[in-house]
Amino acid sequence: MLKNEVYAANLLLPKYELVIFTWGNVSGIDRETNTVVIKPSGAEYDTMSAAEMVALTLDGKVANGELKPSSDTPAHLELYKAYAQIGGICHTHSRYATVFAQACMPIPVFGTTHADYFNGTIPVARELTEAEINGDYEKATGRAIIDTNFDPAEIPAVLVPSHGVFTFGKTPLAAVENAKILEEVALMAFHTLMLKRDISPLGGTLLHKHYCRKHGKNAYYGQ
Amino acid sequence: MLKNEVYAANLLLPKYELVIFTWGNVSGIDRETNTVVIKPSGAEYDTMSAAEMVALTLDGKVANGELKPSSDTPAHLELYKAYAQIGGICHTHSRYATVFAQACMPIPVFGTTHADYFNGTIPVARELTEAEINGDYEKATGRAIIDTNFDPAEIPAVLVPSHGVFTFGKTPLAAVENAKILEEVALMAFHTLMLKRDISPLGGTLLHKHYCRKHGKNAYYGQ
Amino acid sequence: MLKNEVYAANLLLPKYELVIFTWGNVSGIDRETNTVVIKPSGAEYDTMSAAEMVALTLDGKVANGELKPSSDTPAHLELYKAYAQIGGICHTHSRYATVFAQACMPIPVFGTTHADYFNGTIPVARELTEAEINGDYEKATGRAIIDTNFDPAEIPAVLVPSHGVFTFGKTPLAAVENAKILEEVALMAFHTLMLKRDISPLGGTLLHKHYCRKHGKNAYYGQ
Amino acid sequence: MLKNEVYAANLLLPKYELVIFTWGNVSGIDRETNTVVIKPSGAEYDTMSAAEMVALTLDGKVANGELKPSSDTPAHLELYKAYAQIGGICHTHSRYATVFAQACMPIPVFGTTHADYFNGTIPVARELTEAEINGDYEKATGRAIIDTNFDPAEIPAVLVPSHGVFTFGKTPLAAVENAKILEEVALMAFHTLMLKRDISPLGGTLLHKHYCRKHGKNAYYGQ
Repeated sequence: MLKNEVYAANLLLPKYELVIFTWGNVSGIDRETNTVVIKPSGAEYDTMSAAEMVALTLDGKVANGELKPSSDTPAHLELYKAYAQIGGICHTHSRYATVFAQACMPIPVFGTTHADYFNGTIPVARELTEAEINGDYEKATGRAIIDTNFDPAEIPAVLVPSHGVFTFGKTPLAAVENAKILEEVALMAFHTLMLKRDISPLGGTLLHKHYCRKHGKNAYYGQ
Repeated sequence: MLKNEVYAANLLLPKYELVIFTWGNVSGIDRETNTVVIKPSGAEYDTMSAAEMVALTLDGKVANGELKPSSDTPAHLELYKAYAQIGGICHTHSRYATVFAQACMPIPVFGTTHADYFNGTIPVARELTEAEINGDYEKATGRAIIDTNFDPAEIPAVLVPSHGVFTFGKTPLAAVENAKILEEVALMAFHTLMLKRDISPLGGTLLHKHYCRKHGKNAYYGQ
Repeated sequence: MLKNEVYAANLLLPKYELVIFTWGNVSGIDRETNTVVIKPSGAEYDTMSAAEMVALTLDGKVANGELKPSSDTPAHLELYKAYAQIGGICHTHSRYATVFAQACMPIPVFGTTHADYFNGTIPVARELTEAEINGDYEKATGRAIIDTNFDPAEIPAVLVPSHGVFTFGKTPLAAVENAKILEEVALMAFHTLMLKRDISPLGGTLLHKHYCRKHGKNAYYGQ
Repeated sequence: MLKNEVYAANLLLPKYELVIFTWGNVSGIDRETNTVVIKPSGAEYDTMSAAEMVALTLDGKVANGELKPSSDTPAHLELYKAYAQIGGICHTHSRYATVFAQACMPIPVFGTTHADYFNGTIPVARELTEAEINGDYEKATGRAIIDTNFDPAEIPAVLVPSHGVFTFGKTPLAAVENAKILEEVALMAFHTLMLKRDISPLGGTLLHKHYCRKHGKNAYYGQ
């Protein structure tokens, strides 16, 4: 059941040290009924229950649930509407991913750890206009992410400038795992840049080898 | 009861990894009786009890309690006298906040994590004069913080140069939560500066949007 | 029994915080029967069992085990064939070792912690050719490590550029311990370089004193 | 009993995250009998017992104990002979203290956290001569520390270049607490330098105020 899945995925955020307090949320979608389930607004991870997860239609109408959905819900809904292949979305302010987002710097591929999961640079979305910030802000955040033209099957993560990161997966669990992997990749990219400011990103042959041995049609990877 | 509240808030300091040994203290005030309750001087977090919290008048006279109050008490008292809206105060030497305090650098707003809780730059208090250091030092520390003219409703944290940080809240618990949030914000600001030395702080529109969606009169935020 | 030894050594990887998810593997060899035992491909550390470890001949034929061996197995086999004195091999993407690998920088000897275990600079293997990457990639990785002409008795660790690290020992356990030590040494080397970019590596007399008091024929060291 | 005290102090090293494996040791002295007790050589923290601590005369003769004393024992003995006021000595390769030692940089006073415990810059001992390294190395290490003319009552810590740190106290426990405090101070000094390379150390008035309110004859400090 989707509420249990979304609940379990949200609990991984503090377990994986991706959030403190309530700084993050995970959602999932049932594509047959177009029902989105997301963490309730401001709920504490250690006291909320699976039953409290909020179910909505793709238009944002609460289908069932006593609590308000996360205030980031409009961004999630835009992304589910734009990308039929996404089954789960995770949003965090995890430390090193957010550091790159705050510096408005994409994360280049510096090694095979990155290449094993992301087939290229992690992009930064465009900044929002004044009108977007003052208008339907969360929906505009989703739109700006979509404007990067990212392919969630190839690079399931986008940085939001001065803000944090959204990651994607076929399931809510996969979206959270990508958030954890991105944080580790960002940590190593940060320190690599400190050691060697003028480093060149990984060449295409090694990047594609690693990505494809894990994700291509002849995938064989598993450490 | 205030002693229990102050006791519980003090225990969060080691739990949130804001202190080692006895490097920090939290106080609270009952505005009806003008009674301030604070951690006893040098007490260990894992052996002290709620009953051992020290109660004082706003003039610093011990109302009840067997132990001496924290040596930082005069700073707390000055702040409670100057700011009627403060209900709790937290003082720590938490790592990254203290690093900015040691460098005498305010913490600019580099992202929405900061903007969600602090409506602008975290200020650094002025340095004390030789006379203040040699005189009533802790009271002067409180006075120097007040001299920043900070608004605890908008920016509930002030760095003390070469020393550490004081944070504020409507309750002792809220003051500690602001200390934890400030530490996370400082950590990310530090690393953002390492990545991009010439970064510009966040523009006003996004700063105010984030602060107001959480704290304004039409607040709706909750991740 | 070797399967138990290899299993126990693999479990140390998450315990020592050298890996997240399944990012690492340890193998061992029985030199009498030339049987190599390695972690199964993609297996989770907290659910796999000792019985699931995969046994192979030195030619890479699975001797017994239901699961596929780690995809890095061909690199391990090359190394066992080239170095008769190696009894265990560990491969990780541990954070600071990988940061040096991503920067393609060897780790110089900056202190006695390094010198106690590694008798000189930790080398970086050569980069693979396009043909090697597109061909038998994992086997070529093993060959490139061997091309460094490292002596596993003196310096039981080699960085693989843009990738991670391989460490060696007389047993699987010793290989993992060297991985943990290397990570700590790499962390300290990284921060030492941040503090003093133009630092000179440790002089030969102190390096050899430390290495020999622990490993020489008159070894007497033990803190 | 001294063996229990020394045993308990040694166990704090891994608890305080100052060591991995066996990288550290603590000793104590009974000044009435001039008996020194120290961790046995290479013993694991989680399996050793209080009874296994090794007792020696100040000349280094084992008084009782089945095991060999730590190989660093001659350095401890030199220090006990030179400084009658020292009751405990702790030696570690803790991360940030060792980073400063590897960079051969003393740790200046950048804040009151430092000033609360150390009344000035943490010095670096001189380098050993070739003859000292090849001769009675550990004894020479102790002599070089003594040559800094440090006052253990004022600054109970000395960095050993390219090596690690020795800390001191009236008891073995106090020596370990100073090791933990020094590590925290070194961590904050490192990051302060990253933020502001040209920072000036703390002025004398504030330094002495903090040191004296905690250690002077009119000490009143306790957070």
